[in-house]
Amino acid sequence: MAVPLRRRLPMLPLVLLAAGGLRAAEGSSSAMEELATEKEAEESHRQDSVSLLTFILLLTLTILTIWLFKHRRVRFLHETGLAMIYGLIVGVILRYGTPSTSGHDKPFSCSQEDRPFTTLLVNVSGKFFEYTLKGEISPGKIHNVEQNDMLRKVTFDPEVFFNILLPPIIFHAGYSLKKRHFFRNLGSILAYAFLGTAVSCFIIGNLMYGVVKLMKLVGQLSDKFYYTDCLLFGAIISATDPVTVLAIFNELHADVDLYALLFGESVLNDAVAIVLSSSIVAYQPTGENTHAFDAAAFFKSVGVFLGIFSGSFMMGAVTGVVTALVTKFTKLHCFPLLETALFFLMSWSTFLLAEACGFTGVVAVLFCGITQAHYTYNNLSAESRSRTKQLFEVLHFLAENFIFSYMGLALFTFQKHIFSPVFIIGAFVAIFLGRAAHIYPLSFLLNLGRRHKISWNFQHMMMFSGLRGAMAFALAIRDTATYSHQMMFSTTLLIVFFTVWIVGGGTTPMLSWLNIRVGDHVPSVEEMSESRWLYFRVGVDPDQDPPPTNDSFQVLQGEGPDSERRNRTKQESAWLFRLWYSFDHNYLKPILTHSGPPLTTTLPSWCGLVARCLTSPQVYDNQEQLREEDSDFILNDGDLTVTYGDTTITANGSSGPHTATTSLDDRRTKSSSEEALERDVGAADREITNRGTRLVFPLEDSA
Amino acid sequence: MAVPLRRRLPMLPLVLLAAGGLRAAEGSSSAMEELATEKEAEESHRQDSVSLLTFILLLTLTILTIWLFKHRRVRFLHETGLAMIYGLIVGVILRYGTPSTSGHDKPFSCSQEDRPFTTLLVNVSGKFFEYTLKGEISPGKIHNVEQNDMLRKVTFDPEVFFNILLPPIIFHAGYSLKKRHFFRNLGSILAYAFLGTAVSCFIIGNLMYGVVKLMKLVGQLSDKFYYTDCLLFGAIISATDPVTVLAIFNELHADVDLYALLFGESVLNDAVAIVLSSSIVAYQPTGENTHAFDAAAFFKSVGVFLGIFSGSFMMGAVTGVVTALVTKFTKLHCFPLLETALFFLMSWSTFLLAEACGFTGVVAVLFCGITQAHYTYNNLSAESRSRTKQLFEVLHFLAENFIFSYMGLALFTFQKHIFSPVFIIGAFVAIFLGRAAHIYPLSFLLNLGRRHKISWNFQHMMMFSGLRGAMAFALAIRDTATYSHQMMFSTTLLIVFFTVWIVGGGTTPMLSWLNIRVGDHVPSVEEMSESRWLYFRVGVDPDQDPPPTNDSFQVLQGEGPDSERRNRTKQESAWLFRLWYSFDHNYLKPILTHSGPPLTTTLPSWCGLVARCLTSPQVYDNQEQLREEDSDFILNDGDLTVTYGDTTITANGSSGPHTATTSLDDRRTKSSSEEALERDVGAADREITNRGTRLVFPLEDSA
Repeated sequence: MAVPLRRRLPMLPLVLLAAGGLRAAEGSSSAMEELATEKEAEESHRQDSVSLLTFILLLTLTILTIWLFKHRRVRFLHETGLAMIYGLIVGVILRYGTPSTSGHDKPFSCSQEDRPFTTLLVNVSGKFFEYTLKGEISPGKIHNVEQNDMLRKVTFDPEVFFNILLPPIIFHAGYSLKKRHFFRNLGSILAYAFLGTAVSCFIIGNLMYGVVKLMKLVGQLSDKFYYTDCLLFGAIISATDPVTVLAIFNELHADVDLYALLFGESVLNDAVAIVLSSSIVAYQPTGENTHAFDAAAFFKSVGVFLGIFSGSFMMGAVTGVVTALVTKFTKLHCFPLLETALFFLMSWSTFLLAEACGFTGVVAVLFCGITQAHYTYNNLSAESRSRTKQLFEVLHFLAENFIFSYMGLALFTFQKHIFSPVFIIGAFVAIFLGRAAHIYPLSFLLNLGRRHKISWNFQHMMMFSGLRGAMAFALAIRDTATYSHQMMFSTTLLIVFFTVWIVGGGTTPMLSWLNIRVGDHVPSVEEMSESRWLYFRVGVDPDQDPPPTNDSFQVLQGEGPDSERRNRTKQESAWLFRLWYSFDHNYLKPILTHSGPPLTTTLPSWCGLVARCLTSPQVYDNQEQLREEDSDFILNDGDLTVTYGDTTITANGSSGPHTATTSLDDRRTKSSSEEALERDVGAADREITNRGTRLVFPLEDSA
Repeated sequence: MAVPLRRRLPMLPLVLLAAGGLRAAEGSSSAMEELATEKEAEESHRQDSVSLLTFILLLTLTILTIWLFKHRRVRFLHETGLAMIYGLIVGVILRYGTPSTSGHDKPFSCSQEDRPFTTLLVNVSGKFFEYTLKGEISPGKIHNVEQNDMLRKVTFDPEVFFNILLPPIIFHAGYSLKKRHFFRNLGSILAYAFLGTAVSCFIIGNLMYGVVKLMKLVGQLSDKFYYTDCLLFGAIISATDPVTVLAIFNELHADVDLYALLFGESVLNDAVAIVLSSSIVAYQPTGENTHAFDAAAFFKSVGVFLGIFSGSFMMGAVTGVVTALVTKFTKLHCFPLLETALFFLMSWSTFLLAEACGFTGVVAVLFCGITQAHYTYNNLSAESRSRTKQLFEVLHFLAENFIFSYMGLALFTFQKHIFSPVFIIGAFVAIFLGRAAHIYPLSFLLNLGRRHKISWNFQHMMMFSGLRGAMAFALAIRDTATYSHQMMFSTTLLIVFFTVWIVGGGTTPMLSWLNIRVGDHVPSVEEMSESRWLYFRVGVDPDQDPPPTNDSFQVLQGEGPDSERRNRTKQESAWLFRLWYSFDHNYLKPILTHSGPPLTTTLPSWCGLVARCLTSPQVYDNQEQLREEDSDFILNDGDLTVTYGDTTITANGSSGPHTATTSLDDRRTKSSSEEALERDVGAADREITNRGTRLVFPLEDSA
């Protein structure tokens, strides 16, 4: 059965040093007993602290080594790979270096008739003690329960990963997703994330079922392993996490569209994988025969998938929208601390709200992050923008490295590993085939519709970058109660190790082998961190839009910068994207932020009153000048692009645009979103020069 | 007895939505049981989420109201008071509004012979389940255990306050303690914090013992209440927490020395109170007669006090120093994210290290914060400085408001309140007398030694500002197992409410009634937050030194700015401070940071090699120019003050100081710390003009 509260969190060292001593006078008979219990509790508390300290020192060591690596520009091993290696070393030490001291926890058997209660009251020589249910123990494991204390302490409750460590990672992914290339490739990303993950899950599941059948034939399987288990394995292992690849892409400044495809896919397929695994778990055919296909159960599972996914999506979007409205209609931005705290609390409440409603918190948090980045971020004060970014960056960094350290540690400290060579080899083959079977066919289909094709080299790179990370681990460790799940967990761990080390290390050679262009006039990491500070100080954040590169469509199609490009750009924007863009630009942005065209011009006239209430006064002001602050220009560059057409405006002129735009008021409000899109590329170039100007007169900006 | 793991953290919603369902096929007989357990677990998880969500919505509401109050400049109610009111309202709703649904947790009795085990294995129809000890329940309370589920959910484990919420609050207090006025008043602050808290504890303890005796006489006391309980109450309630007063001081810009005295006292007496309460708990006379004075036990308690305090102090200082050394000798400042993460982890490890060694984590964290602010902060990159400050500011804000919300909630949801009017009235009188009995005599004694006396008005203000807050609450809720402790907890809660609302609200009238000067040319809060951003953007942080005011010694003594002042300033620096200053300036600063004189000049010549290794190259460079970055000039203004003597240097000349200081190299290294102190005041004025200049040419600075 599922074990809800397997181990208590070492994060809560919960025992007073000497508490209870005051009451020793109540009766000297019980005093000695109490003292003994206190001693044990104190000892347990100390061990909790030590085990958590172990992780913190591991992380500290990792940070220092990361610095050394970055300092020396070592690229063959990413920080996450490093964290795993340190974890491995500490795991070996804990496993073989510490004495197996146990004996405090003496098991006590006492027969009960019915099903287990969640609370037990035990009468010990007249005193009542309360006990809570930790979970079931399979009869063979009773003696394993009281193994090495230290090993038990460092083995966290699996749900910690899912409820404490994943949310900041996923939220940060969503919050940093505000890349124009993401939205430009939205259709392809959705296809890879949804269709791709589903295809991968089913192919891996079926292949693994074959492997399991084979194992049964040769007698390698000692316990049950159902088809649903295989499918679950497919769902677990289908979530890609190209954190290593993306870090290297970032460092080498590889193609931005490829980056967007990989990043978008990995962020969204995490959500898909979670919901998919929940749905597979919900697939419970009625009756005894669990192998027969049960249409009702299947459709129920599909229903669960759709229900959980859309519910979580709604939760995330709704809290994001509420936060945007609150930050828009209060003057909270005068108090950055309050604003940041509110932002943090609202984002966290998404998770809780989704969990309370029976949806998936992690998925809700992802969409909340995307919404916050897209709307709320624009309403925040400059200080809060950097604060929230930095806060979640630190949380993300710590959580991610913690998970990878733990993975290394778990290889030796987890006490129920089942390594089956056949299963492991089968799994490696299956994930390879599963990835191939969705990347190439989907790319082919997408290329039918895409103007700027996904080239073969890109497809190979996407195929290669499908490494597995934190999400696969968190899904696998969630339930390790049965034989099949333990084997799946051990295999997942090995797959993560292999892909992070080998694939992560091979990214740089692979990029050059595939002739993918790198280093497009983009500052290096050290320059970035410097320039970020510089930008930061003048109130512009380079994270908001990707570093200036040559237009990536060019790279994809090998075209020169000619006048044809604009038409092409117009046509190549997918209808889905255009539909969303115009809705977002005309209605959502004006309602939720201080930017976009006034609602009074976009809504039908009978909504006049509502439109006036919802439109912030700044919108009218904004119309009069270039909105320099909001550099998310692909979705929000009404002014910029309109002025682009006016060739009399010099790129670095700060007074020119003002006069030009005010005279163009009517034309602007009529300009459709498609027109805006056409001039997108040119606007990007202007924006950059514009920013260069601002760096020279930073104080003028703040006025 | 002490109850180590009373309730599990709702922060860990630990149950899978539908986990375990996969294994329904293992046997249809157990399937129904499992399903039922899962349902319960799911329900419990949902309630956990809902209860945490309640707090988050409470905090969100508080934040929005705080904004409204700040916006409208309402000062009669501080945010913490507000958080308590919202907490109260929700508490009432939960208490009287929710149905008392329980019954899931069916208690089960089962006799055991010996003392309680920490783990139970229970055999339920052939399956084994593991249970852990939650704690003892007094026989009369067995039926209370299974009361309203929701009320139980919102009642956190008391140790959460101590181990999760207090550390960020206390660390932030230490980290923001880098005020020159704090170090200038160090002696007085130490006296108030140590002697004052001890005096207050014993006076309150003895008075309350009288009250308890009285209650026994009139038959108001229904259970045991020992002398040590009274002393513990004294220790709990002696920790002042003038967060409200200080917020108002900050807003009104009241006298900085008074601010330093109150802030320093409240920060340090938190540490004293914790250790004092641990020591009192450790006071266990041998034998049956617990009322007789036992010299051995008393000295043991004193030993425990000294041991825990010095141990925790050392832990904090050592990790602070290690962090300073790591940040000094690595070039980690190129990567602010790594630096911030390292800083966070090292500071957290202090807490765990202290707990693992049996010391008090909260106290260690306080001294770690002070050390980090004093040394490590100087080694951090500009971005990390703001990042760490902001990170801990947000954590502090959230934790503090959470605690105060919880206090409001606890008044109605805590299920073991014992309100005794006699005890409560007695407690109010006792804390009044206890504070009076240490503020006035100690001030009298300190005034004998102080040049700038603590005036009567200041003493009255200090007397008035002794309100109780988070620390008293956390200490009181730690142990509510016995009758006496429950009464103490209820009384503490009421005292916190009263002092935060009444005293907090009365601060502004009190200040004007006592004629304490407010508003000394200091920007208002809104201006501050604006100017902070401005300062921030040019790399200077106004938090580092207090806003420029007229010299506060003037306020204390009513003197005009004449030439006598310098001599006076020299004399009024206490010997303790001067000793520390010269040691810190000559040895610690150069070893741990990039500032201060080179060790090669301060250490004896036979340490030459060591000195060269430890002195960073920057120190020699620093000598050549004004160290503008480090504006903690009271302890670190060797250069600034030396150049002050040179009247040819204009205040805003940026090239002048360079030539002047280089020619003064020999003189500077010989200049004693006392010389530096003399020119302190003048240097402060220069610093400010200097900064004004920098604002005009911000980009030049970053070079």
